[in-house]
Amino acid sequence: MPTPSRRDLANAIRFLAADAVEQAKSGHPGMPMGMADIAEVLWNDFLRHNPNNPQWFNRDRFVLSNGHGSMLQYALLHLSGYDLPIEEIRNFRQLHSKTAGHPERHETPGVETTTGPLGQGLANAVGFALAEKLLAQRFNRPEHAIVDHHTWVFLGDGCLMEGVSHEVASLAGTWGLGKLICFWDDNKISIDGNTDGWFTDDTAARFESYGWQVIRKVDGHDPVEIAQAIKTAQAETDKPTLICCRTVIGFGAPNKQGKESAHGAPLGKDEIAAARAQLNWPHAPFVIPSEISDGWRAGNTGLVREEQWNRAFDAYAKQYPELAAELVRRSHGELPEGFSDAAQAYLAKLQAEGPVVASRKASQMALEAFGPLLPELIGGSADLAHSNLTLWKGSKSVTSNDANANYVYYGVREFGMSAISNGLALHGGFLPYDATFLVFSDYSRNALRMSALIPANVVHVFTHDSIGLGEDGPTHQPVEHLASLRYIPNNEVWRPCDAVESAAAWQRGIERRDGPTCLIFSRQNLAHQARNPQQLSDVARGGYVLHEPAGGKFDLILIGTGSEVELAMQAARKLEGEGIAARVVSMPSTNRFDRQSAQWRESVLPSTCRKRIAVEAGVTDFWRKYVGLEGAVIGIDSFGASAPIDALYQHFGITVEAVVAAAKQLR
Amino acid sequence: MPTPSRRDLANAIRFLAADAVEQAKSGHPGMPMGMADIAEVLWNDFLRHNPNNPQWFNRDRFVLSNGHGSMLQYALLHLSGYDLPIEEIRNFRQLHSKTAGHPERHETPGVETTTGPLGQGLANAVGFALAEKLLAQRFNRPEHAIVDHHTWVFLGDGCLMEGVSHEVASLAGTWGLGKLICFWDDNKISIDGNTDGWFTDDTAARFESYGWQVIRKVDGHDPVEIAQAIKTAQAETDKPTLICCRTVIGFGAPNKQGKESAHGAPLGKDEIAAARAQLNWPHAPFVIPSEISDGWRAGNTGLVREEQWNRAFDAYAKQYPELAAELVRRSHGELPEGFSDAAQAYLAKLQAEGPVVASRKASQMALEAFGPLLPELIGGSADLAHSNLTLWKGSKSVTSNDANANYVYYGVREFGMSAISNGLALHGGFLPYDATFLVFSDYSRNALRMSALIPANVVHVFTHDSIGLGEDGPTHQPVEHLASLRYIPNNEVWRPCDAVESAAAWQRGIERRDGPTCLIFSRQNLAHQARNPQQLSDVARGGYVLHEPAGGKFDLILIGTGSEVELAMQAARKLEGEGIAARVVSMPSTNRFDRQSAQWRESVLPSTCRKRIAVEAGVTDFWRKYVGLEGAVIGIDSFGASAPIDALYQHFGITVEAVVAAAKQLR
Repeated sequence: MPTPSRRDLANAIRFLAADAVEQAKSGHPGMPMGMADIAEVLWNDFLRHNPNNPQWFNRDRFVLSNGHGSMLQYALLHLSGYDLPIEEIRNFRQLHSKTAGHPERHETPGVETTTGPLGQGLANAVGFALAEKLLAQRFNRPEHAIVDHHTWVFLGDGCLMEGVSHEVASLAGTWGLGKLICFWDDNKISIDGNTDGWFTDDTAARFESYGWQVIRKVDGHDPVEIAQAIKTAQAETDKPTLICCRTVIGFGAPNKQGKESAHGAPLGKDEIAAARAQLNWPHAPFVIPSEISDGWRAGNTGLVREEQWNRAFDAYAKQYPELAAELVRRSHGELPEGFSDAAQAYLAKLQAEGPVVASRKASQMALEAFGPLLPELIGGSADLAHSNLTLWKGSKSVTSNDANANYVYYGVREFGMSAISNGLALHGGFLPYDATFLVFSDYSRNALRMSALIPANVVHVFTHDSIGLGEDGPTHQPVEHLASLRYIPNNEVWRPCDAVESAAAWQRGIERRDGPTCLIFSRQNLAHQARNPQQLSDVARGGYVLHEPAGGKFDLILIGTGSEVELAMQAARKLEGEGIAARVVSMPSTNRFDRQSAQWRESVLPSTCRKRIAVEAGVTDFWRKYVGLEGAVIGIDSFGASAPIDALYQHFGITVEAVVAAAKQLR
Repeated sequence: MPTPSRRDLANAIRFLAADAVEQAKSGHPGMPMGMADIAEVLWNDFLRHNPNNPQWFNRDRFVLSNGHGSMLQYALLHLSGYDLPIEEIRNFRQLHSKTAGHPERHETPGVETTTGPLGQGLANAVGFALAEKLLAQRFNRPEHAIVDHHTWVFLGDGCLMEGVSHEVASLAGTWGLGKLICFWDDNKISIDGNTDGWFTDDTAARFESYGWQVIRKVDGHDPVEIAQAIKTAQAETDKPTLICCRTVIGFGAPNKQGKESAHGAPLGKDEIAAARAQLNWPHAPFVIPSEISDGWRAGNTGLVREEQWNRAFDAYAKQYPELAAELVRRSHGELPEGFSDAAQAYLAKLQAEGPVVASRKASQMALEAFGPLLPELIGGSADLAHSNLTLWKGSKSVTSNDANANYVYYGVREFGMSAISNGLALHGGFLPYDATFLVFSDYSRNALRMSALIPANVVHVFTHDSIGLGEDGPTHQPVEHLASLRYIPNNEVWRPCDAVESAAAWQRGIERRDGPTCLIFSRQNLAHQARNPQQLSDVARGGYVLHEPAGGKFDLILIGTGSEVELAMQAARKLEGEGIAARVVSMPSTNRFDRQSAQWRESVLPSTCRKRIAVEAGVTDFWRKYVGLEGAVIGIDSFGASAPIDALYQHFGITVEAVVAAAKQLR
């Protein structure tokens, strides 16, 4: 049997992709066919990974930022020996298969991050590369390069058009991420056709302006040129590299290659047959002849590589047992022993001391309390460090090259920031938090959604959480944002009412292991609320009875969050003075509360009491799920205004008086 | 009295800004003090405007993209003679003042667009400049340059860090917007401090890579250099220009200038006094001596300019009466006479013909029907023209230089697209629509919010509106998006159930004059629904009775939107077979329905009937506002999955059977 050529090996990708898309009657054959030669060289000759253990910590990370070309990745995983059998390829895009329309980390072994929303794969990859750099800085010792891998990215014109590519490429340049190597699939075709009409950037010059090494005009179908470019990229250790690969989309499909018709639809039976002839690929769909699969497996030195690394790690662990233990712990995503107890003790202390501070300040206090316990904590803000209060005493800028660097000045780049956070979390070894004003969660919104979908354990901090921010006005005042963030599946939003709940929310964010947490903090000071030990422990349930009238009987229930809890408490006192007994429920996290047992929910909001009033400085309709049609909601359904805080609350009628009046109307 | 120097004139801006921020105890003095000299030269020597008529159609547009420096703009408007008296400056950032924390178009005469969310002012300005270019192309004739103005932008480091700046600068370069001239406030300071740590781009090279003219290293405090740069910018008519102005933030405040402490907080009494001494400005706060105000008014040739233009327009109107009439109509934002009738006729025709198509196809049919009537219609898609179905027979690419150019290939730039749409709408003369998949409304989300806040009359088209998009999987399947978009104040979301409602939604979007409309369309085919003439006309109310059981008596109400209306109809039929009478309410626009009279709402959802079931392939909690705690909601609260559509609806339980089962449980 003849030894297969590199082109033959690459053709295996091409036909797995074309045939799977054909069978699924949907998908994107063009990109896999166009990038197959690049992928073949990278995966067979350069990528350091172990298909038998996709979790090997020091593996190279491969990210398919142009995720619509998912079949490229599935083909690579299958051919390289990952646990992705041919049946899964046949089941491309079917329910319960491991081969979703776009690569999904939680579905498919070997997929490092979920991609599809363009540009974010690149952003995640910047997070991977930053994680690697910082871990190496922290853990490597002379002769012990324990953390030492590359991050490889495939990306297309679409990724480069997206704004987020600007934000993260700029940061990658600033941070000098020399182990980040990106392949641009420069095929001049996007869905609408030839990109001449809408993508005329000099991309090479653009990336040089970010401080990248750019390798121009590589023939993406020439293995020698590709290999040479990769070597040049690896040789540059101070700058990320963009390799500009000229490719033909749908390469090998004689009538559709180079055209948008190859991009996002099955090629069709006839065209696939013609491609088979053209590329000399006589094999039936989903049949990979043994010489081809052998050719793919030949390069698999993964097991050996991992064993070598394991030995090296053992030697390292002998010499640096504490560092090794920390790295193991962090790479497993385990919190330091005793963290939970320490957090509880801090909560109890706060409850006793009762500081009256803005919850953003309480957030910073929590960072001061928890930060020293958590070397894995890495934070940052989109140029609002002193407003978001994200810096704490242990913060060291990642540009400092300090071994304990843990703070990122992201600049004004909300979307890039949160997408990078996702990458930091997925890499392992870090627990990232990021921050901006709540209203600018709009800018990062799809990255927040991706945190929840992937899922990635990120704490997203949002301060200035309502019209309470005052004079900056409606462009800066969130109204619909709380509700909108709560609606993202698997997202968990906390809006604490005082320093105690703020610390509890932070504890939850740190301890959560199955998705992101959004912490919503006020600009203005918040009163301290009294709690008995049971109530203190109930905070973690997301919703609990904060105030019960004497005797335990109540006429109505007031539900509040954040700054409006104190307002509800004052209203309850006023009502009590008028002979109306009101229970007050603090509901810092509706998401968390909704996941409690029916029994707990019933105990907090008994169905027998339908006289309920919710108060929150945000859209009112959200609260109908708790107060129903009969209840009342005090909130705001219009845009805010520019004025001092007191004038605003008065103007928009979010007041004790309004709650009291609503309560009387309900009776 | 000595003639004031240019510096004196600029100092008037500086102290209005510093004193107003001091009085408000909040705001951003640094930027106005830093850019005052640039502003003075531009406004006194170059800007073509008429302070007496901020609506003059051919005025230059000035956009403050770094909107936190709002006092710069207020000072300029005040000094130039706009209707913004000194009392308003004194009331900076107070309730009901015309001087909000960030510039707001609907509050302040002379403010072209609402800014503050960084990068979007630049994006709006690209829309202004594109509008000007296209209107000139369409309306100007030899010797008659009726549309002929510049768009000027002030922008800061923050705008340049934001991803949206990449998207729109790239398009401005591609489109060759020669009359777009931007001043970069290159002061090396952002909120977190010196930008060296997070903003190391070679911005000049970056903009050259977009095909811009870049004028480097202009001293932003030297009027001669500034004027020379402006002349160079104006001389280049084929490329937009970026003028890189080296400035000192907080210029003139001896201890704070050049530091972040000058950025976003009052300077303090002592520092302002020191600045007064340094800049030789002895005047009391809010006092502008007459020689200074005369100096500012001297350059005001606005009235003369507008009169000249009016005369020129009269001459043009004589020679080209139809063109002139069209321009007047479009510039006033009036629809062509008879549009409403034509739309109604089209609706009636559709109702009679009953096409069964995807609503995205129905959307395209509506474009075919309405497009020929509306030369002001300008559309586009973020590289999904053939998926969003945004092209119609009359579509001509704006890169064609055709006089009727009306279609924008935005590339994969959702945020930039919608922010540019806002600019197109605000300029006047156009009615923009844009499009992407619904899930990617996340990418453009703050631009959508700004459409509603400014407000701008834009039609945002979102197709592939649910898990119904099928195989592309959860990254592409919206779940929380419908609810989230409906919660944006002043936004109006429509999710039509068939071709008729789709056309009605388009009619509403076209006719709306006080904000944006989001049109949500399906990928999959939708059944046609029968309607009598009254029902047909009731569609416009956003929610109406689509099906009433025989006899008009019903046990329960089914509420549906979009693709789920047919599901509700089938459930109603099934229930009827089992002796349960169900009314079916089609609710294409909850926003529109909520604004109907209480009487109408009661007639559709009588409070006597609390047995209600809502069905929509999106988050369920949203519907509690209509079904209360007792009702049921059939929807989806998790992420979707990659599979063919039928498998998905079955898997997630959004089925006729589920509705029927829920109905039986309610009884």
